[in-house]
Amino acid sequence: MPFVNIRITREGATREQKEQLIEGVTNLLVDVLGKNPKTTFVIIDEVETDNWGVGGESVTTLRART
Amino acid sequence: MPFVNIRITREGATREQKEQLIEGVTNLLVDVLGKNPKTTFVIIDEVETDNWGVGGESVTTLRART
Amino acid sequence: MPFVNIRITREGATREQKEQLIEGVTNLLVDVLGKNPKTTFVIIDEVETDNWGVGGESVTTLRART
Amino acid sequence: MPFVNIRITREGATREQKEQLIEGVTNLLVDVLGKNPKTTFVIIDEVETDNWGVGGESVTTLRART
Amino acid sequence: MPFVNIRITREGATREQKEQLIEGVTNLLVDVLGKNPKTTFVIIDEVETDNWGVGGESVTTLRART
Amino acid sequence: MPFVNIRITREGATREQKEQLIEGVTNLLVDVLGKNPKTTFVIIDEVETDNWGVGGESVTTLRART
Repeated sequence: MPFVNIRITREGATREQKEQLIEGVTNLLVDVLGKNPKTTFVIIDEVETDNWGVGGESVTTLRART
Repeated sequence: MPFVNIRITREGATREQKEQLIEGVTNLLVDVLGKNPKTTFVIIDEVETDNWGVGGESVTTLRART
Repeated sequence: MPFVNIRITREGATREQKEQLIEGVTNLLVDVLGKNPKTTFVIIDEVETDNWGVGGESVTTLRART
Repeated sequence: MPFVNIRITREGATREQKEQLIEGVTNLLVDVLGKNPKTTFVIIDEVETDNWGVGGESVTTLRART
Repeated sequence: MPFVNIRITREGATREQKEQLIEGVTNLLVDVLGKNPKTTFVIIDEVETDNWGVGGESVTTLRART
Repeated sequence: MPFVNIRITREGATREQKEQLIEGVTNLLVDVLGKNPKTTFVIIDEVETDNWGVGGESVTTLRART
């Protein structure tokens, strides 16, 4: 019964891509640890770029400069 | 000073229901562990059904099929 | 399929008390939101008092002073 | 490569304030632990006051009464 | 710069299996979303079975009965 | 009433350093957002290097090679 939380910046991930993440990480837990997929939960959090920082500045600022 | 994070799918929980969750889980921590309710925090995260996976597929897909 | 994460300081919660927390919070989600208990997950994290801060100091320091 | 998650109520934090939080907490990890800022991540979650509880009631209710 | 948190029960996952989880989930984020692996973080939390609940009881109790 | 979770690898942070992190991040929230320090919580999670991945490999492997 694993629980996986994936956090990415909100920059246009499609529903299909999110389905692929859910399916892929569930299969990974089945393959590596023999976990039951029926009780494997995955939650994807999409975070605004203003609210995600790396290197001491927000991703919004980082994207604007590069 | 417990901290509780409740994650549910975003499917119409009302403000009253969320108040009941907050009150109920706070009382539980008082009753079972003698915690001080004043410093008990509860955060409810409501997650889009596209972003919650179980059994290798999103809840959106699961709800559409069943 | 709710997911609940309860964080408390590691100060001697017994196995019975943890069972009561798990049962109580699961029942709460059934009662308030009609959730299925079979797919309700609860994870309790017990945190060392050195690693939990409130009011700008650790709980270890707070407990020593009061 | 520290990871910091700051959770606050959604009550009007500006982009500048969020930049200050990201910069400040990154500098703190550099100063105290000698961490590399380039691989220091900060995520700020802003939570609706209906969804944040303290003392057994939501912050919405608390703010309305006080 | 995704962040992934995998939570599993502490039931003997080996270092090799944890390496496979880290590599697999990082590759998944590269393949599906084109993310940079160098800034992809994965944290695995292993949780005692006393502290993980499903269906209103701990995994310790569940394992003992089945 | 902010809640801050700091996650670092378990590589010898002292109690004094953890006190400095708690004090520093609490002061930051007071200074930037005017938050009340008394209801500011900080939790530090120290994660084994086997369980923290970056660039598709564990920090244990990364440290051994560099």
